[in-house]
Amino acid sequence: MAAHRLRGGGRLGFGGVTAQPAPPCPGPLPPPGSGGQCRRPSLLPGSPRAVPGRCAMSADWFRRRFLLGGPLPAPRPPRPRASPVPYRRPRFLRGSGSSPGTADASYRPDARPVRSPVRGRALPWNAGYAEIINAEKSEFNEDQAACGKLCIRRFEFGVEEDQEWLTLCPEEFLTGHYWALFDGHGGPAAAILAANTLHSCLRRQLEAVVEGMVATQPPMHLSGHCICPSDPQFVEEKGIRAEDLVVGALESAFQECDEVIGRELEASGQVGGCTALVAVTLQGKLYVANAGDSRAILVRRDEVRPLSSEFTPESERQRIQQLAFLYPELLAGEFTRLEFPRRLKGDDLGQKVLFRDHHMSGWSYKCVEQSDLKYPLIHGQGRQARLLGTLAVSRGLGDHQLKVLDTNIQLKPFLLSVPQVTVLDMDQLELQEEDVVVMATDGLWDVLSNEQVAWLVRSFLPGNREDPHRAKDAVATEDSNFASQNHLQARCQCERPPWSTADGDSWTKGIGQGCQEEQTACVWIQVSNA
Amino acid sequence: MAAHRLRGGGRLGFGGVTAQPAPPCPGPLPPPGSGGQCRRPSLLPGSPRAVPGRCAMSADWFRRRFLLGGPLPAPRPPRPRASPVPYRRPRFLRGSGSSPGTADASYRPDARPVRSPVRGRALPWNAGYAEIINAEKSEFNEDQAACGKLCIRRFEFGVEEDQEWLTLCPEEFLTGHYWALFDGHGGPAAAILAANTLHSCLRRQLEAVVEGMVATQPPMHLSGHCICPSDPQFVEEKGIRAEDLVVGALESAFQECDEVIGRELEASGQVGGCTALVAVTLQGKLYVANAGDSRAILVRRDEVRPLSSEFTPESERQRIQQLAFLYPELLAGEFTRLEFPRRLKGDDLGQKVLFRDHHMSGWSYKCVEQSDLKYPLIHGQGRQARLLGTLAVSRGLGDHQLKVLDTNIQLKPFLLSVPQVTVLDMDQLELQEEDVVVMATDGLWDVLSNEQVAWLVRSFLPGNREDPHRAKDAVATEDSNFASQNHLQARCQCERPPWSTADGDSWTKGIGQGCQEEQTACVWIQVSNA
Repeated sequence: MAAHRLRGGGRLGFGGVTAQPAPPCPGPLPPPGSGGQCRRPSLLPGSPRAVPGRCAMSADWFRRRFLLGGPLPAPRPPRPRASPVPYRRPRFLRGSGSSPGTADASYRPDARPVRSPVRGRALPWNAGYAEIINAEKSEFNEDQAACGKLCIRRFEFGVEEDQEWLTLCPEEFLTGHYWALFDGHGGPAAAILAANTLHSCLRRQLEAVVEGMVATQPPMHLSGHCICPSDPQFVEEKGIRAEDLVVGALESAFQECDEVIGRELEASGQVGGCTALVAVTLQGKLYVANAGDSRAILVRRDEVRPLSSEFTPESERQRIQQLAFLYPELLAGEFTRLEFPRRLKGDDLGQKVLFRDHHMSGWSYKCVEQSDLKYPLIHGQGRQARLLGTLAVSRGLGDHQLKVLDTNIQLKPFLLSVPQVTVLDMDQLELQEEDVVVMATDGLWDVLSNEQVAWLVRSFLPGNREDPHRAKDAVATEDSNFASQNHLQARCQCERPPWSTADGDSWTKGIGQGCQEEQTACVWIQVSNA
Repeated sequence: MAAHRLRGGGRLGFGGVTAQPAPPCPGPLPPPGSGGQCRRPSLLPGSPRAVPGRCAMSADWFRRRFLLGGPLPAPRPPRPRASPVPYRRPRFLRGSGSSPGTADASYRPDARPVRSPVRGRALPWNAGYAEIINAEKSEFNEDQAACGKLCIRRFEFGVEEDQEWLTLCPEEFLTGHYWALFDGHGGPAAAILAANTLHSCLRRQLEAVVEGMVATQPPMHLSGHCICPSDPQFVEEKGIRAEDLVVGALESAFQECDEVIGRELEASGQVGGCTALVAVTLQGKLYVANAGDSRAILVRRDEVRPLSSEFTPESERQRIQQLAFLYPELLAGEFTRLEFPRRLKGDDLGQKVLFRDHHMSGWSYKCVEQSDLKYPLIHGQGRQARLLGTLAVSRGLGDHQLKVLDTNIQLKPFLLSVPQVTVLDMDQLELQEEDVVVMATDGLWDVLSNEQVAWLVRSFLPGNREDPHRAKDAVATEDSNFASQNHLQARCQCERPPWSTADGDSWTKGIGQGCQEEQTACVWIQVSNA
C-alpha cells in the first residue's frame, strides 16, 4: 500500500515473528475487551472494566479526542520509553533465507527475490505464501503475515476464597484456522504489531462469546456460569445466529488490536499504520474480515467470488464527507469536504463547476465560492486518491498519531479500524479440491484482475497442470506487463499439492527481472481441507 | 405505510390533483435550487441565492436546527395562515368515481373498490394504475400518485436593459416521462404536496444542468451562456457521465421538494410526511429514485430485477445509530442508541446480553448498565420496526415538525429526504414488449413477493393471456391470503394492452371481500414503449 506522504525508501531487513497464538493465560483472565467475560461480583453498571472498549467509544470521548479547541483530556503520566518494535518477517519464512541479517538479493535492483516457506514446511490446509519486495523503494518490507491454528478455550465456573470466579479450561474447546495479511505504511511497526497481536485479540473475543456460539442459537443472556434460558420469542425474531457472534468478535478484535497498536507505538515512540485482511475458518464457515485495500477472492472451477471490498477514500467518500459535514471542526478550515473533478483555482471563482457533497451519488453544478478553493478532503482518484492529502486507505489499524503535514488535523476519525466481514458457509458450497481462496495486498491486484488470478489458479488444477510453463507463457502473451508474471510465478513456484506440480526452481528463473512498483504478499488456501 | 403513532382512522374522500408539470414560468426563472442557473452578475461567492439548498446544509444549520439546548434560530415573523392543502385524488382518476364527494363504496366494509383510470384514458406508455383503500381504517387515502411528460427546456443567453440574462426557451428541448407514488403518513397533506410539486422541482433541477446532459460528457464548467471548454484530463478521469447529472438532479429535486413541503405544511398548520418512489425515462435511460419503503421491480420474461431498496429503521440501523453516536444530544437522554434483541428491563441489569452498536454488523454481549434500559433508538423489527418509537421509514419527504410524543426530540435529522437512484440503460437491455416495471407502495409488497408479482405479470403476457381467470385461480390456489388476490385483481382488471385481455368487470367480482390491512397504490409501465 502506498501512502503518498508516508513512503520511505531504502534498505530492507528480515526477521522472524510470533505468528502463533499467545500461550494460554494461567488462572483467571483479565477482562478481554468489550464483549469479555465478567466476574459476577464486579458487574457494577458503568464499571469501566466491564466494557472497556465500548466505554471509550462515546461522543464525549470522540469530541475530546478529535475536536480541535475542545476540552483536552488530562495529560497522561509519562511512561517508561519502550524499545522499538523489532523488524521481523513471518515465522513461517524461517529457513527460506529471509531472516534478518541474511544477505538479501533484493538489495540488488536486478534481482527481486520471491520469498516463500521452505519446502517441507507446511502451512495449515496446504496453504501457500509468497512475498516480493522492490528493494529500491523500501528499506523494510512493510507487508506482514500470520497464520496458525485458532484454539478457543471455554470458561468454567469455580469458587475460590469465597468468591466466584470464571476460570479457563486449558483444553481446546473449539478450533479454527487463521490467516492474515497486513500491509503497513509509515514504517513496518504497525504491521508487525498487528501480526503479533490480532490473533490473540480474536481468540479472547471469541472465548468471551463461545458459549453463545455453540448453543443452538445465541441466548439473549450469557452469564458466567450458565446459559440462562431466554425468551426465545425475542431472540428468534431478531434472527441472531452463531455466525453473528463470530462477526461481532472479529469487529471487536480489530478494535482491540487497534488500541493495542496505538499504545505500543506511543510507548515505543514509533508511528505508522497498516491494513488488515483476515480469513478465519470456524464451525464449517469461512469468515473474511477486511479493513483496507487488500483483497480476497474464492476461485472455483466455474466461478470467481469476491470475498472482500476495498476501503479507500474513494469507496468511502460519502461516509468521510458526512463526518466532515457533521463536524467541520475536524478540517480546521484547511480543507473543503466537497468533491470536484480537480482542485479548483482562483480562475474558477464564480464559475459553475461540477461537484458532489456527502448526500450525493450523482453530480451537480455549483457556483464556486472562496471556501471551495481549499484543498479537497479527498483528492485524486483510483490509486492516487488520498484522504486529507495523506493516506490512500480509509480503514486500517494504527495511525493514532498521524496528522496532516504541518497541521494539527488528525486522520483517525476519518480512518476506521472496523472491518467488513463476509461469511461463507463452506458446507453449503460443497467445496471441491480445486477451490482456492487467494488473499493478497494491493500490490498484486494493482497488476492483475480477479479473473487473471483465477485463470492462473485454474491452470494449476489437477487436470491442467501437465505443463508448468503453460501459465507463464500464456500470461506473457496475454499481458505484456512482466510484473504480472512475476507475481504469478511468485505464487505458483512455491506451491505444491494439489494444483501444481511445477518445479519451483524452473519457476524462479526470470523472477526479479520485472518492474515492481510495490511490495506485495499473497496467501492461497485450499479451502476444501476444512 | 404505517407510522405507529401516526395512524388515523375514519372516513375517506376522493378528489383530483394536478399531476401535470406546472405551466412554464414566463421570462427569467427564479433560482431553481442549489444546482440552478445563475445570473452572471449575481454570482458573488457565498451569495445566499446562488446555492440556497446547499447553504442551508451546513453544520451550523444542523446544530441550530436539531441540537436541543443549542443556540436557536431567530423566530420567524408570523406569516399569514394559508388554507389547508385540499384533499384530492390523482387527476388521471377523474371520471372513475373517485372525485371528492362521490358516494364511495369503500365506506362499506364489505366492498373495497379498486380505483383505476377510466377506459380510454391512457397513461403514458400504456402504463396502468390501481389503488385500493381500507375504508375502515383511514378517512383519507394517504397514497398519492402523479405521472406525466417531463418537458425540459433550455436556457438562452440574452441582454435586457444593459444586463445579461438567462432566458428560458419556451420550446421543449428534451422530453422524458415521469411516474411517482407517494405513501403518506400523519395525514395526506405531504403526499398531495409531493404529487403536486416534485415533478416541477425535478424539471427545474434538470433544466439547470441540461447543457451538461447533452454534451458528449458533462463539462467541468457550465456557464450561463456557453459550455466553457474544460480540461478533459480531469473530467474524463473522474468518469462523470450525463446520467450522473440526472442522478444529481433527482437527489436535489427530492431535497428541494422536501423544503417546499416543510414550508407549505408550516404555513397551513398541517403535519405529516410521505415516502416517494419516482421513475423517470430520459435519453434512453430509466432512473428509479426511492426514499421510503415503496418498491419498484422490472419483470422480464426470464428475470425479476429489483430497481430499488427499502429504507427503514432496520435497513438503515448503522447510519441512524452513528448519528446518535456523534450527536447523543439528539436523543435528549431518553433513548439508547444500542440495539438489543428486545427492550431491556430492570431484571437485566448486570446481565450479559446480546447487543449491537453503530459500527457492528455482528452481535456481541455486553453487561447491562442503567442507561441501556432506556427506550431503544430503533425498536422492533420487520414491519414493526420504529425509529424513535414513532416512524416506520427512515427516508421520505415532510415530517419537519414531527417529534417523539411528549418530547422535544425531532425525527428529522435521522429521517433523510435523499433518495437512492438506480439507473437502467434501456438500450443495452434490449427491452421486449413484455418487459414491465411495477411500482407499488408497501401495501402490495407486504402481501406479495417480487416473484409472485412477476408471475402474475407474466401470466398476462401476449402468449399467456388466453384465459383471464388463470392468474386469479392460480393465485387463489397458491396463496390462501385473499388479500393478495385483491391486489392482483386490482392491478389486472384495469389493464388492457399489451399483456391483458381480461374483461375488467369479471375481475372486479369478489373484490373487497378480502382483508386489507393497508391502502396501497400501484403503477405498471410497459417500458419498451420508450
